[in-house]
Amino acid sequence: MGSPASALLTDLYQLTMLQGYFEQGMEEIAVFEFFVRRLPKERRFLVAAGLEQGLEYLQGLRFSQRELDWIDACGRFKPGFVDRLATLRFTGDVHAMPEGTVFFADEPILRVAAPLPQAQLVESRLINLLHFQTLIASKAARCVLAAPHKLLVDFGMRRAHGAEAALLAARAGYIAGLDGTATVLAAPRFDIPVFGTMAHSFIECQDDEVRAFEYFAHAQPGNVVLLIDTYDTEAAARKVVELAPRLAHEGIAIRGVRIDSGDLTRHAREVRRILDEAGHREITIFASGSLDEHALQAMVAAGAPVDGFGIGTLLDTSADRPYLDCAYKLVEYAARPRRKRSEGKATWPGRKQVYRVLGEAGRLDHDILSIEGDAQSGRTLLEPVMVSGRRLAAPPDLERIRAYTRCELQRLPDSLRGLGPAPAHEVRVTEALRRLAAAVDAHTPRMGP
Amino acid sequence: MGSPASALLTDLYQLTMLQGYFEQGMEEIAVFEFFVRRLPKERRFLVAAGLEQGLEYLQGLRFSQRELDWIDACGRFKPGFVDRLATLRFTGDVHAMPEGTVFFADEPILRVAAPLPQAQLVESRLINLLHFQTLIASKAARCVLAAPHKLLVDFGMRRAHGAEAALLAARAGYIAGLDGTATVLAAPRFDIPVFGTMAHSFIECQDDEVRAFEYFAHAQPGNVVLLIDTYDTEAAARKVVELAPRLAHEGIAIRGVRIDSGDLTRHAREVRRILDEAGHREITIFASGSLDEHALQAMVAAGAPVDGFGIGTLLDTSADRPYLDCAYKLVEYAARPRRKRSEGKATWPGRKQVYRVLGEAGRLDHDILSIEGDAQSGRTLLEPVMVSGRRLAAPPDLERIRAYTRCELQRLPDSLRGLGPAPAHEVRVTEALRRLAAAVDAHTPRMGP
Repeated sequence: MGSPASALLTDLYQLTMLQGYFEQGMEEIAVFEFFVRRLPKERRFLVAAGLEQGLEYLQGLRFSQRELDWIDACGRFKPGFVDRLATLRFTGDVHAMPEGTVFFADEPILRVAAPLPQAQLVESRLINLLHFQTLIASKAARCVLAAPHKLLVDFGMRRAHGAEAALLAARAGYIAGLDGTATVLAAPRFDIPVFGTMAHSFIECQDDEVRAFEYFAHAQPGNVVLLIDTYDTEAAARKVVELAPRLAHEGIAIRGVRIDSGDLTRHAREVRRILDEAGHREITIFASGSLDEHALQAMVAAGAPVDGFGIGTLLDTSADRPYLDCAYKLVEYAARPRRKRSEGKATWPGRKQVYRVLGEAGRLDHDILSIEGDAQSGRTLLEPVMVSGRRLAAPPDLERIRAYTRCELQRLPDSLRGLGPAPAHEVRVTEALRRLAAAVDAHTPRMGP
Repeated sequence: MGSPASALLTDLYQLTMLQGYFEQGMEEIAVFEFFVRRLPKERRFLVAAGLEQGLEYLQGLRFSQRELDWIDACGRFKPGFVDRLATLRFTGDVHAMPEGTVFFADEPILRVAAPLPQAQLVESRLINLLHFQTLIASKAARCVLAAPHKLLVDFGMRRAHGAEAALLAARAGYIAGLDGTATVLAAPRFDIPVFGTMAHSFIECQDDEVRAFEYFAHAQPGNVVLLIDTYDTEAAARKVVELAPRLAHEGIAIRGVRIDSGDLTRHAREVRRILDEAGHREITIFASGSLDEHALQAMVAAGAPVDGFGIGTLLDTSADRPYLDCAYKLVEYAARPRRKRSEGKATWPGRKQVYRVLGEAGRLDHDILSIEGDAQSGRTLLEPVMVSGRRLAAPPDLERIRAYTRCELQRLPDSLRGLGPAPAHEVRVTEALRRLAAAVDAHTPRMGP
């Protein structure tokens, strides 16, 4: 009891409401949509991610006997409730934007249509899965735009918020275009390339820095990347230059050096000069330490001779904006559109579709948000992915998702590619959707006096 | 392959270095300490948390056959490496501050002394576990200080960074003094009280708000807390007043109402007035929605008649500061103190101890950071918790940790209790430690010209 797949990984009120729904026979089809209410000023676009884990969760949803026993014994629910839970499975339909799709405020990236108790129960974990990977993929995409043609590696496991965050951040980052991760488990789990060098402790355990370099090269002759900032970066670069011919005699090539502290641009220039003057243009420079898209952009703009970057904490925690204002909201019940009208949190009712209209050179021009069936020009972004609890296709290969995301990022107009705040991308709400909202309001309690 | 306990939940360079250590016979005792380099300006103190999960991880550390097979097949390591990994267990000693201890910059909260390969391998996951819970406990403690005597509940699962983050945030928040969580799984897992009300969807699925309230009350007669902001908060409060006598006839009492949007203080005042005028002083008001310690403090200062708060996203992501500048650093190898001197990242060498000196009224006065064995006045904060890979005591009860944390918070002087930036608490570094650092530097490569 306690795996990420546990049906108890939900908010208590979901179970409480389920009991009410069962009692009142409220089991007609409910439609919920997941969307982001508004983009933070730190993001010009978002990248949908996490669908795969969401569908896995829906497909595997069931209460184990131990979980049922716990619910029965906890004293909060009536006799008979667990009998209903025991047979509960997810039998609904799901529409979604493919992972890697660029999207904007108010656009649903996932729609669940299922008997109300099912659609309700899954809210907490679906949000938990879609929110986090979307958060990280969106941040990682900015890093990719900021440093094109550079090797970018996720280094964030240690300060990611727990084990699952570390693994899913590696996945979301890879989808968005990073080249890989340092987190080993991401390789067997998701088939993501892993990268690694060495830590300062390896150097410090030796009395001599050069000897540490040599030991490391012998242990890992196929992938010699030496960390050179433990004591004095430039002095260590000169030691690398002296060591290179000795290792070459043994058939070992030094592939690169890593700098992890100080003014990375300045050190990279000095180190590049030292390496080049000794004829070692082939030795690459890798930089890490408190990097994010802004630091990458600044280093690229400064022409820092860095071949690759390790991006850690600021990516895996999405540090400048560690959450999105997202929601999973009821939009229809028993074939009638619904919406919430709480102050500042009103939502669009009904099953919706998003249409993407391209402009010049195949770049995004604007999106159209309408009700399903109200055909508009442009590509429809929400596709059926699950029917009656069964997936319509095998999970797409991560490489395919990554390639699709690359295309999505190529379609971004210049107005969406920069890092600073910018006017929002245009999402046109159709007359049909506005009329529907007005009609729904006419049928629900009126706003205050 | 993929559980949070997996030995592959580490950075690739740990495995790469292990191969080097094994080859060179570098298996003497290495001592690493985990500490926070500097406090963010948003925190005046930190609360240590996550030790329990760290010790569990150390005690369970082993590579499964599938993991060994993967390592063997991945093509990165030499034959024979997995044979060494197959028998690897954690056999070291651990000192730590008890969970719930208040601490400051440069003060180690955990010290590992183990054969170098073991002490190295566990770095990534130990940081991952200690960092996150410490982050959340420290944030939650600020909420507790900001709203004393209020019911505080963690509502953050949906936007926590994954499943483990949600569960460990519930735990860290409870340690720091929250009253419970909405995350069901935290109850069977950690024995934390769970709380829950109802969602807007429950209301919206009915055509009539009052009927939704009634249904909910019947389904959950022992815990009727009604959400009243779906359409019009004050109008819904009047409906609650009308409904109360009808429910009372059936023996059902309305315990409270929840407000989740708009100006919470203003709505709470209006709702309180409506309830009181109808003689329902016993119905409590619970508020939620974008709350953090600053919002709590403002509402308490304004005298908002709110009995309890649900604190979600901003707590579980520690949104104002979603990471700490923490490190797990080598301080000794083969009985010789070590330290890193990278620019801006220099650390204190040797095994250290932290002494806490109390002043007036038993409040914190200053701390002393020295080397182990250099007895100072004050309470020693680092205690032995594991010897030769075995815990010295059974895991402490969460209630005991929580009570201890309460005492710790009571000892905070006024200068540490406020929310805004403030001068750092004094941590005195002893002459003995300074001398040791100088001696270590004399034995390691010199800083650049």
